[in-house]
Amino acid sequence: MKQKTIDRIRKFTEDRDWNQFHSPANLAKSISIEANELLECFQWSDSDYDIAHVREELADVLVYCRNRLDKLGLDEDEIINEKMSRNEAKYPVDRAKGKADKYYNL
Amino acid sequence: MKQKTIDRIRKFTEDRDWNQFHSPANLAKSISIEANELLECFQWSDSDYDIAHVREELADVLVYCRNRLDKLGLDEDEIINEKMSRNEAKYPVDRAKGKADKYYNL
Amino acid sequence: MKQKTIDRIRKFTEDRDWNQFHSPANLAKSISIEANELLECFQWSDSDYDIAHVREELADVLVYCRNRLDKLGLDEDEIINEKMSRNEAKYPVDRAKGKADKYYNL
Amino acid sequence: MKQKTIDRIRKFTEDRDWNQFHSPANLAKSISIEANELLECFQWSDSDYDIAHVREELADVLVYCRNRLDKLGLDEDEIINEKMSRNEAKYPVDRAKGKADKYYNL
Repeated sequence: MKQKTIDRIRKFTEDRDWNQFHSPANLAKSISIEANELLECFQWSDSDYDIAHVREELADVLVYCRNRLDKLGLDEDEIINEKMSRNEAKYPVDRAKGKADKYYNL
Repeated sequence: MKQKTIDRIRKFTEDRDWNQFHSPANLAKSISIEANELLECFQWSDSDYDIAHVREELADVLVYCRNRLDKLGLDEDEIINEKMSRNEAKYPVDRAKGKADKYYNL
Repeated sequence: MKQKTIDRIRKFTEDRDWNQFHSPANLAKSISIEANELLECFQWSDSDYDIAHVREELADVLVYCRNRLDKLGLDEDEIINEKMSRNEAKYPVDRAKGKADKYYNL
Repeated sequence: MKQKTIDRIRKFTEDRDWNQFHSPANLAKSISIEANELLECFQWSDSDYDIAHVREELADVLVYCRNRLDKLGLDEDEIINEKMSRNEAKYPVDRAKGKADKYYNL
């Protein structure tokens, strides 16, 4: 995400004084709620979806994730790289290739 | 997200040949599932949470969002800015300030 | 659900003094969290699932729904019949038959 | 749930020929989606909620759970009692009383 986009999200929240509602639990609920509005685009079909709607709901998820990163003072690249290191160790290429199994079943 | 982080996520998926599992509906399910693992960190309390766990689950949400952006060829900044324009129109500062109401109740 | 099953769920909660954690928001989170553990059984496949796991996660959803009915003093049959009346009006057989569309698209 | 209510839900689905859409994964998505519409009633507040809305969304969750029980030929009381036996063993009263901890932390 570009710094300009991050700044726009922050300004949106600050201008409306909405930081007071962004408790850790409320933001977690919000991410789940938006994730499920995204899921609703695929409720009955995997292939027949409204791309305009998908764009909108995915954006909502990402905006609340950004709010959460800000709220907890987390760095997006840092937490993702930490997790990717763990994923790479859990799912070695030679055992995980082409399989959707959980790591404890590999 | 830095290009280097994006590339790492893409390589992870490609190395394991996991693109085949990343159908639009499967990724939507995955984002919701991870969002709820994040929510579980706040299931019984808003304030007493395990930050290491939160970092990990938020990273999972973000990685699947990145997979989805890639799958549909979407630009993160573009879809967020589109949505922010809509949000700014729906929630005018003078009416939304300090209120958590839905826009249709403002 | 049989009265004996309902009583067992209530006794479980009372014996552990867990009513204090069952705030309306906490129970809503809990239902979503369990619903997503159920969803995880179908994350990568519609047909290849572990039925023992599905039974367990569906039971968890139903137990938290029962906790919620109790907490708010709601009658299961009453709220479902109210909703079914609304659904029957929203989705007239002649227009909805064989279609998965939302009612406002029918 | 009374047999009459169960029959009404089944007739609703059959009359509309909607069984074809009720794949295991689609029903799992549907339960999660409705659980999150319920969660949305408590997005920003634990105490200030619209009870009419809550009734409706909880009913939706329960209807889809009933569809799922039917689809897989499961008995509600049977799966819940199985799960309650497991819960009672995992959370012994003397250790779990008054604590919201996960069983592996008790």
